[in-house]
Amino acid sequence: MINYPNGKQIDYKEKRIKTKNEISVSSANRGMNLEHEINLSNLYYSENNICLVTKRPTPIKVVKVDYTKGAIITSAFFEKQSTTDYNGVYKGRYLDFEAKSTISKTSFPLSNISFHQINHLKKVIEHGGIAFFIISFSTHNKVFMLDASYIINYYENSIKKSIPYDVVCEVGTEIKQSINPRLCWVDALNEIYYK
Amino acid sequence: MINYPNGKQIDYKEKRIKTKNEISVSSANRGMNLEHEINLSNLYYSENNICLVTKRPTPIKVVKVDYTKGAIITSAFFEKQSTTDYNGVYKGRYLDFEAKSTISKTSFPLSNISFHQINHLKKVIEHGGIAFFIISFSTHNKVFMLDASYIINYYENSIKKSIPYDVVCEVGTEIKQSINPRLCWVDALNEIYYK
Repeated sequence: MINYPNGKQIDYKEKRIKTKNEISVSSANRGMNLEHEINLSNLYYSENNICLVTKRPTPIKVVKVDYTKGAIITSAFFEKQSTTDYNGVYKGRYLDFEAKSTISKTSFPLSNISFHQINHLKKVIEHGGIAFFIISFSTHNKVFMLDASYIINYYENSIKKSIPYDVVCEVGTEIKQSINPRLCWVDALNEIYYK
Repeated sequence: MINYPNGKQIDYKEKRIKTKNEISVSSANRGMNLEHEINLSNLYYSENNICLVTKRPTPIKVVKVDYTKGAIITSAFFEKQSTTDYNGVYKGRYLDFEAKSTISKTSFPLSNISFHQINHLKKVIEHGGIAFFIISFSTHNKVFMLDASYIINYYENSIKKSIPYDVVCEVGTEIKQSINPRLCWVDALNEIYYK
């Protein structure tokens, strides 16, 4: 324990423990939900005026509402998103992307992606927007950005039902992971679309 | 009844009745929900590859889900949209807008717009996106497009709590109404941002 002239005490032991905690939190993050990590990163990007992306709420089909208790929904069910989960604006351009995670070590299964999402992303590209996928291989603790046109082409023309991990490593751009933002996906975006 | 060489008959009486029906449908439309009209127009624009805009689903806070019956939501409530209702892409640019309707003949009440929506639209403008409002005066059967910066300025700096109808007519651009698309809002967009 050292006493500084300003009266503050620094307990190095305490500090060391804090660092340990941080490391253990960081390890815990690995298993963290990809969506949650992207949402946190988007919050960072928005607060720092780098990029504005919002997540579309999960569509829910409301069946019954109890108005006697102030509009409480008493019966409803989840609907499939017919578009992607995220869209937004970066340097005036329209961005649209879908985030998917797989526990597979060897490949990314295309069954994860719906026909509607492929159609939506094709339209985004037609209208001059930037369309991509963020794909997480949770077992490898690696996250990649892939231009949507690559996946669309694979989806429509390949007889394979999944993209091998090696191919994703080769054609994709790895998204760096840090404390804040958790996923530096805007760096990958710059690398792919603004070089 | 006239018989034409191609064998087709044209019954002018019938035709006249059809036109009457069309007019009555058009009158009925006046009371139609603004959101529904915009959704139909967006569908037209999407199918004709003019513009791609999607409506954000209403955010719903799910409290209880019954998994025994296949994920039926048994308790939930509506949340306020913290952003706007619509966003999309036009000629590569990011679009973001909110649609509001008023039955008032004399002014558009700003209480219709939330603080969160104003903040969101300010951010859209900062990032180079196009931000606007579609405002319907249902009693007048007139719909206008107003650049968001005008409303933001009014919201933040005016002591008035509503924008007079005359002012909206003057600073806004009227959105033409037709059969399909119901609201030709892309024409107004071109007039304001692409002239």
